[in-house]
Amino acid sequence: MPYTGKTKRVIDKNKVKVGDFVKVHWKGEDLTGYLMPRIETGDEQAIILKLESGYNVGLKDVEKIEKIGPRIEIGKIPTIKLEKKEGLKAISLIGTGGTIGTHIDYKSGAVYMCRTPEEIIATTPELGKFVNLRSITSLFTIASEDMNYTHWQKLAKAVVKELNAGAEGVIITHGTDSMHFTAAALSFMLRDLCKPVAIVGAQRSPDRSSFDGSLNLLCGAHFATSDIAEVATVMHATSNDDYCYAIRGTKVRKMHTTRRDAFKAINEKPLARIFSDGRIEKLNSRLNSRSETIVRAETDFEPKVAIIKAYPGSDPTLIDYLIQKHYKGIVIEGMALGHVPTGKSGAGAGPLTRKLSWIPHVERAVKKGIVVAVTSQSIYGRTNAYVYRNLRLLRDAGAVHCEDMLTETAYIKLGWLLGHNYDREEVKKKMLENIAGEINPRITEEFQ
Amino acid sequence: MPYTGKTKRVIDKNKVKVGDFVKVHWKGEDLTGYLMPRIETGDEQAIILKLESGYNVGLKDVEKIEKIGPRIEIGKIPTIKLEKKEGLKAISLIGTGGTIGTHIDYKSGAVYMCRTPEEIIATTPELGKFVNLRSITSLFTIASEDMNYTHWQKLAKAVVKELNAGAEGVIITHGTDSMHFTAAALSFMLRDLCKPVAIVGAQRSPDRSSFDGSLNLLCGAHFATSDIAEVATVMHATSNDDYCYAIRGTKVRKMHTTRRDAFKAINEKPLARIFSDGRIEKLNSRLNSRSETIVRAETDFEPKVAIIKAYPGSDPTLIDYLIQKHYKGIVIEGMALGHVPTGKSGAGAGPLTRKLSWIPHVERAVKKGIVVAVTSQSIYGRTNAYVYRNLRLLRDAGAVHCEDMLTETAYIKLGWLLGHNYDREEVKKKMLENIAGEINPRITEEFQ
Repeated sequence: MPYTGKTKRVIDKNKVKVGDFVKVHWKGEDLTGYLMPRIETGDEQAIILKLESGYNVGLKDVEKIEKIGPRIEIGKIPTIKLEKKEGLKAISLIGTGGTIGTHIDYKSGAVYMCRTPEEIIATTPELGKFVNLRSITSLFTIASEDMNYTHWQKLAKAVVKELNAGAEGVIITHGTDSMHFTAAALSFMLRDLCKPVAIVGAQRSPDRSSFDGSLNLLCGAHFATSDIAEVATVMHATSNDDYCYAIRGTKVRKMHTTRRDAFKAINEKPLARIFSDGRIEKLNSRLNSRSETIVRAETDFEPKVAIIKAYPGSDPTLIDYLIQKHYKGIVIEGMALGHVPTGKSGAGAGPLTRKLSWIPHVERAVKKGIVVAVTSQSIYGRTNAYVYRNLRLLRDAGAVHCEDMLTETAYIKLGWLLGHNYDREEVKKKMLENIAGEINPRITEEFQ
Repeated sequence: MPYTGKTKRVIDKNKVKVGDFVKVHWKGEDLTGYLMPRIETGDEQAIILKLESGYNVGLKDVEKIEKIGPRIEIGKIPTIKLEKKEGLKAISLIGTGGTIGTHIDYKSGAVYMCRTPEEIIATTPELGKFVNLRSITSLFTIASEDMNYTHWQKLAKAVVKELNAGAEGVIITHGTDSMHFTAAALSFMLRDLCKPVAIVGAQRSPDRSSFDGSLNLLCGAHFATSDIAEVATVMHATSNDDYCYAIRGTKVRKMHTTRRDAFKAINEKPLARIFSDGRIEKLNSRLNSRSETIVRAETDFEPKVAIIKAYPGSDPTLIDYLIQKHYKGIVIEGMALGHVPTGKSGAGAGPLTRKLSWIPHVERAVKKGIVVAVTSQSIYGRTNAYVYRNLRLLRDAGAVHCEDMLTETAYIKLGWLLGHNYDREEVKKKMLENIAGEINPRITEEFQ
């Protein structure tokens, strides 16, 4: 989209053109990069600069732009149609949105939230050497931070449909920000899972040279045709394009804002190391194998579940607010082994400490029938309800410490269990039963 | 303390004695360990068993106990008084409680929350070879999850008093669960800091063979006599007793529930590697050096600051509740680069997605004069307010993305800034100014 008004005047005055490599003087700083076309959905007053990092920034009130290097050609994203080859396994691909599907069309200047799945595949033509795509679906085209349980439900049903219709496995392309929530949700919602489900995405957009989505897609396809019948994220294992890790959907967490190897297995080993040529090294013995059963989707989910954080000085009346809003489940992300402020400390604690105790608020929630689960904000390691007296106070109030379960996974599991017609005690009991590999009974110190 | 009533009858009936190595049949499980005396503050109905892990558990309704091994001697904790030696530097020690100060007095059977600082020193008589203790203070004896800003204020004042009275440095013994909050609080509250302040603790209690407090104390003493004028945690760097890391108070986080090397430097290198013999290897170039200025305590703190987590399906009306409760600051722990649900997604988003948008709630909070800061639940890496349109929406609503600052540090910094008489815009501006090393301007991918 062309620039107009004030931004057009600045560009014309400084005699630069879209595509030029320029230096922009902005708020006392010098920024260098390529001058991009105006973004359709962006601020009319902003000049778009593609920094050398590959990121685009919008700069308002720019007065001075100087051409300092040669132009680049601003072209169009390629598309591709993979041909079906005999002898290759047929998998399905379901697109949901996210960075792996973003692109900037430099002709029109518009930033599209998402490529079509066909355009995503075009980034990785090598896929055609290894698999046939029996079906390509664009289920949603949304940023993953905007997902909620309704998307997990639709996605679970779409996966079941593909697997039971004959797909050997499924690849889901997904935004990375909430990928581990979706991975956990599918791990619980897909019952009797007999085939692999790979969730892949990208930390860098396809228009950057450091785009990581191709290796992830390729390794995702290898996982989808493997004999590992698990829901797993398949993302870069290192910051190079060496290989990917398939990590169990209930044991994975995004642990870096930008690194390509941001996804880490927490409290257990990754399921497998996957290379672009199709080699798969299994790393974990807790693996279900491919079989010929029928997959079911159990998608009922109770949305009235919340995560709150307990920390020094935290306000326990947030629990009262959740009671008042008729919440059914609360996950307390506690300190270390699963601590909350208890007000039961010794000399020098002071009156405020007693006032900030979470215990009476948890007791009240439990009395109202709310299931209160406890996880650890330390992320790594196991919670414990016994080691210290303060932990026992929380347990005696009726809370359940969720072993080595991730906060995100406990949130999903609690919503999913409460979606069933179990009574409260049954839900509490099932929180500590291993349903989708969410508890590692043999966690040792090596998983750090 | 001796057992009474029902528990005494069970012990007598099974012919076991306190100190015996026993097998207990409890709720369908067999547990083995040493039978401990009754705990004064514990449940009268519970039998205390010291498991082989070193942890004590209280078991109710035990019917069957069987002696299966020889007794241990149940003795008394030693105490020690270090003699002052000429030529050694004089530091101060301030006790605040925590696991490093727990002990079970097996004579009386009572579990004491905390040893006196003199008893803590007795675990590490080697201290006397390296330092003189000019002053030993027991400021509080509390579990660190029960701390709040009033404790940070008292502690900052106590440290200032010691340093300005001639101590070469200070060691603080502290519980580990909220150690990184206290470390951040002291980093801001101690202004013109000209000497080292080491915060040490233990992940394992002194009655366990894997007690880690001795090495931490010793390395803490070396840090306190070093030329590094920073607030730092000094804790195990590995799971062996090899050496410790001194980690900047604003850049440290407890990253494991039980490991001895749970404390990790986030988004920068540790300040130094410290060995038990006193060798110090500096690892970080952002270090203030010891000097001869006067330290000041700036301890005003606004308690009406909260941390809330944004995640798929999260309830943005928590913000309204905080507005109603007259909060002055909110730290949103967002997804990845600092995302919240925005409801602005593309195809297939659905009406619930729009309803769950955080943007109007953040706008309302900002309009009410609340400072809204944004950090990342990915923990590692930097936030960004520009890369995606959804991030810009949050920024346009008035929120400030806190670079690579930890959530815990942002919470402390916001409370501390709001405790000053700055106006709202000044607080927002200062959130992005580096006051205590909380922002690493040169973060690179190596800090993962």
